Amino acid sequence: MKTHFLVVALLAAGTLSSCAKKPQPEAATPPAPVAAPPAAPVLQPKTGEPVAPVEAPKVADQAMVELGKKLFFDPRLSKSGFISCNSCHNLSMGGSDNLKSSIGHKWKQGPINSPTVLNSSMNLAQFWDGRAKDLKEQAGGPIANPGEMGFTHDLAVTVLQSIPAYVDEFKKVFQADTIDIDKVTTAIAAFEETLVTPNARFDKWLRGDDAAITKEELAGYELFKSSGCTACHNGVALGGNSFQKMGAVEPYKTKNPASGRSAVTKDDADRFKFKVPTLRNVELTYPYFHDAGAATLSKAVEVMGQIQLGKTFTVEENANIVAFLKSLTGDQPKFELPQLPPSSDTTPLPQPFGK
Amino acid sequence: MKTHFLVVALLAAGTLSSCAKKPQPEAATPPAPVAAPPAAPVLQPKTGEPVAPVEAPKVADQAMVELGKKLFFDPRLSKSGFISCNSCHNLSMGGSDNLKSSIGHKWKQGPINSPTVLNSSMNLAQFWDGRAKDLKEQAGGPIANPGEMGFTHDLAVTVLQSIPAYVDEFKKVFQADTIDIDKVTTAIAAFEETLVTPNARFDKWLRGDDAAITKEELAGYELFKSSGCTACHNGVALGGNSFQKMGAVEPYKTKNPASGRSAVTKDDADRFKFKVPTLRNVELTYPYFHDAGAATLSKAVEVMGQIQLGKTFTVEENANIVAFLKSLTGDQPKFELPQLPPSSDTTPLPQPFGK
Repeated sequence: MKTHFLVVALLAAGTLSSCAKKPQPEAATPPAPVAAPPAAPVLQPKTGEPVAPVEAPKVADQAMVELGKKLFFDPRLSKSGFISCNSCHNLSMGGSDNLKSSIGHKWKQGPINSPTVLNSSMNLAQFWDGRAKDLKEQAGGPIANPGEMGFTHDLAVTVLQSIPAYVDEFKKVFQADTIDIDKVTTAIAAFEETLVTPNARFDKWLRGDDAAITKEELAGYELFKSSGCTACHNGVALGGNSFQKMGAVEPYKTKNPASGRSAVTKDDADRFKFKVPTLRNVELTYPYFHDAGAATLSKAVEVMGQIQLGKTFTVEENANIVAFLKSLTGDQPKFELPQLPPSSDTTPLPQPFGK
Repeated sequence: MKTHFLVVALLAAGTLSSCAKKPQPEAATPPAPVAAPPAAPVLQPKTGEPVAPVEAPKVADQAMVELGKKLFFDPRLSKSGFISCNSCHNLSMGGSDNLKSSIGHKWKQGPINSPTVLNSSMNLAQFWDGRAKDLKEQAGGPIANPGEMGFTHDLAVTVLQSIPAYVDEFKKVFQADTIDIDKVTTAIAAFEETLVTPNARFDKWLRGDDAAITKEELAGYELFKSSGCTACHNGVALGGNSFQKMGAVEPYKTKNPASGRSAVTKDDADRFKFKVPTLRNVELTYPYFHDAGAATLSKAVEVMGQIQLGKTFTVEENANIVAFLKSLTGDQPKFELPQLPPSSDTTPLPQPFGK
């Protein structure tokens, strides 16, 4: 009996240490054994599928993620003091702005549709043409782009360096007294790496829960595979892992002047090749294509069938594929709206108007 | 020895019950009486002060607040699909945009500094000139203002009505099948009523915790009172409860053409009278005054002293008042970033560019 108490006390004490906050002065005798809960049914994960489920994010450095989250939401990284990363990659709206092309500094119209930031860590490169090799390199782009946040890296750093709470937080995270753009984009990228969306109904199906998707969604997935969509939209993100020609079978008609991958490689063979977008959360990331040429999923499926596969889907086939695509919406990132540290008396003022 | 173990087990089991998440299959008899925790010192609330502490918000209808929160963050209430209530009343930044005047549809420059939405339910009326009688009336203003969200109430409602999840949520909250602007602004106002900021250090002091503010902050408060600031900045919000002339003692020089309360009353005696802004969270709501003429708290205190009181504060006096003002920062609203329901295929598209 004494041993029994000892075990309980140790177990309970173990719990104590993992359960900070409020210890409550309450008494209890040691627990009696209780019946185990009914065993969950053993699920048989699907094998041999061209798509794999999203894993929950692993956070290596929570303090850095929290700093990056603040920076992601901070409009003081823009010249106007009005535009933040979240303006065009709105985490209330699937990590996108749901506009044909984004609104930049002084309402400049962006040249291309903003891709979602969700699951973007899985992309082989960033931007539609892959001109940034990773999220860190990407994060620096919009800050200094005159048509986006319209600022300079130097000025953005000067602003942050003038804000005492940021200086403290960078010091804690990077063990360094000075802020530089490398640290800024490192922290933003660390936050963005957490923006993955596990537990889509389709992923539950992949993991063996046959009831997680409907008959129509399953039929849509089967057709998605058999039609050849998975040639490009495969892997965990169903895309993001290759550059492909927009208009493989039939030319894509667009007024958008973007030339795609060739702008980076200077190889004419890469003309009109774009990074294949992820289909994760595609229900939330309308409109579609680099030129936002398709306002609805149904239109996007129709056009993709025609120009990439030379196929015309029936109304029912189209509806089934759309239904399948909507089963790819996962858990959206959940976190408290961050509170930004106030500027100081020496913080350079935002310049939304004037030159 | 057995008793010793028992105590550990009891304490630990008590802790278990306060440690939500993982229920552990463990049995317990009813708790035995234990010694009460050491009594907290009895605090003597300050009496006779012109300022009263902020109470935590009371939520009457959580479902309506949740709906209002989504609407507050939803840029689809604007013509561009880009500007939401939160754009200019940013809840990451003290419920303000920290700009001299706000950026509206197509980057139009607003005529006046955006007041904070925090604690705005305490205002006797809304807007600087008090032209809206309450938050509900205020909420409709920016949506239809061509220089702000640039939309119309009808179009905003049409957008919401096209979004199935909103239709469901309005139905649940209002027991009605159709959405109208009255319901939209009712829900937004219900959310805004929760945006109060209790637990400022100064409020702890008011409640009797003498150590909650520093000697300088207390000296600042005493000077704030003795100088006459509390003639206008009093009550729970330290303002928001009267219209007062900007430049009571000495004319205020500004290029801003706003005429203040007279624009509403058509009474020339109300010229240059503005709603006295709250000083709650004033550390976060820079720049100051209707024309944002003061970039820093120090400047604001200096100017107020001169034009409202005919006083010139010494450097030390100014610093003490500023220190006191910074003790008015309360707990900022804490909530998860809302997830907005996606548009449907019939949702009218945002029109950020063109006419």
